[in-house]
Amino acid sequence: MKTYIGVDLGGTNVRVALVDEHGTVLQDKKEASEVDKGVPYVIQKIIRLIESLDNYENAEGIGMGVPGPVDTVAGKIVVTNNLPGFAGEPLAQMIQDHFKKPTFMDNDVNVAGLGEATLGAGKGKSIVYYITVSTGIGGALMIDGKVIAGKHGHAGELCNIVVDRNREARNGLAAGALENEASGTAITRKGKELFGDSIEHAGDVFQLAADGNEQALELVDSVAYDLAQGFAATALVIDPDIFVLGGGVMKSKEIFFNRFHNYFKELVFPGMRDIEFAYAQLDEPGIVGAAMLPLAYIKNK
Amino acid sequence: MKTYIGVDLGGTNVRVALVDEHGTVLQDKKEASEVDKGVPYVIQKIIRLIESLDNYENAEGIGMGVPGPVDTVAGKIVVTNNLPGFAGEPLAQMIQDHFKKPTFMDNDVNVAGLGEATLGAGKGKSIVYYITVSTGIGGALMIDGKVIAGKHGHAGELCNIVVDRNREARNGLAAGALENEASGTAITRKGKELFGDSIEHAGDVFQLAADGNEQALELVDSVAYDLAQGFAATALVIDPDIFVLGGGVMKSKEIFFNRFHNYFKELVFPGMRDIEFAYAQLDEPGIVGAAMLPLAYIKNK
Repeated sequence: MKTYIGVDLGGTNVRVALVDEHGTVLQDKKEASEVDKGVPYVIQKIIRLIESLDNYENAEGIGMGVPGPVDTVAGKIVVTNNLPGFAGEPLAQMIQDHFKKPTFMDNDVNVAGLGEATLGAGKGKSIVYYITVSTGIGGALMIDGKVIAGKHGHAGELCNIVVDRNREARNGLAAGALENEASGTAITRKGKELFGDSIEHAGDVFQLAADGNEQALELVDSVAYDLAQGFAATALVIDPDIFVLGGGVMKSKEIFFNRFHNYFKELVFPGMRDIEFAYAQLDEPGIVGAAMLPLAYIKNK
Repeated sequence: MKTYIGVDLGGTNVRVALVDEHGTVLQDKKEASEVDKGVPYVIQKIIRLIESLDNYENAEGIGMGVPGPVDTVAGKIVVTNNLPGFAGEPLAQMIQDHFKKPTFMDNDVNVAGLGEATLGAGKGKSIVYYITVSTGIGGALMIDGKVIAGKHGHAGELCNIVVDRNREARNGLAAGALENEASGTAITRKGKELFGDSIEHAGDVFQLAADGNEQALELVDSVAYDLAQGFAATALVIDPDIFVLGGGVMKSKEIFFNRFHNYFKELVFPGMRDIEFAYAQLDEPGIVGAAMLPLAYIKNK
């Protein structure tokens, strides 16, 4: 049995795991990431955590998921808000220098998408576009089991696709940017505008709509259309076999997903209406997907 | 020297050529395609044209470019307006059965893009998005020298990306579809609305703008923004190394391209502003690209 080490470095926690080639997590460890203590400290922590895994020395390679765009060639984080002080650091190289094992790094959305594409809902499909709709909206493109991160690691930055230029610009994105109109955060914001502070998250809006509230239904319908436009643009660019859906927002099936899906089918060509949609299946796409990075890269080299 | 046979089957003419691995056209033949005479007649014509090429029997393989989406697995044209009666016909298979050479088919935009990606402006780049802006707007994605045609052959059908939903729906596309707002046809239509029938094509609008006509300048600016939004959406989905630009509309450099490019840079993330733009370089991307199909597929198998 071949094994791989996955590292999931977030702003709050860092997790490492030993994962087999089928995506089973054999063992994992977690600690606070303490990114404020700087790059050398965090790298030493990751090394120590990996060395605490049984049989880590037999793993084929190491994969790391980190927030923000990654220069996958140099193994650096290019830009990141969640890991201050880490931009431009060759994290993967540092880990590789220590363990003498092939080490790869990519952003956390790409890594989760890779996990879903190779072992989860997209398994066996050629072109998989993973899109997560939660606090924000991000995507990842996998073709034949390999992440296509783009020239700058920005492939899948769907958050800034403009779905209606006549909206207000927010959060440094373009006016009418997808993320500001159709993310969980956006639904909450729009819900608060209509119903006040009784709305704490997107689920509250969906519940009102499910209860038959007309205003809530209109809001859900409008957001479904905005989201469908973003997905349709993506489909027209790449025509994937399947969209794998991450994030909690998409799971409100009857109220939201069906409207979204119908609008999507209106906005693409008739021949594309059978593009599949599936919910993400992995319990831990971040750590499993990270562990799949060396498999994806070694296989494709 | 390895050689390949390219076939460019259009609604008006069919061309065949013997092309070497560097994209040099060694010999070519052209006839009226006479598609109204049906599939068997046209296939026989193509066979006869190929057999009239010197040393055709030494070619490594055959590639065909046809209008409209193509099912690249089965080698069929899926939908086509320009070749009535040809939808669903396994044209590539028919040619392959005769010559016993590997034969591949793709749509004409993908084929032109492949030519540009492998031998023209995109040579040596990993992710190339070819976009042609002329009568219509279409694109083609090449990754590492292979066409990514999508599940249904619809990757690159950028014509229906919505750039402003508050416009009038036309030509069976969504309201505000890119092709209806920023193609050569669209510029001509909008020019006629402003200036009457003195406008015969997009170049007349560009000329008026270059002469300082304020209305024409506003129109050029507005179209440049619409087009930039379509390109920005594409960039956010795939983050290419380079956009290769086909079609006459993009060549009006000072008046149109600079505005377009500035808006594009506004609409993507700062890290993506250096995505390259280059004009298509091949004199005959259709026939050369078709001849490169077997090279792309054989190499990648």
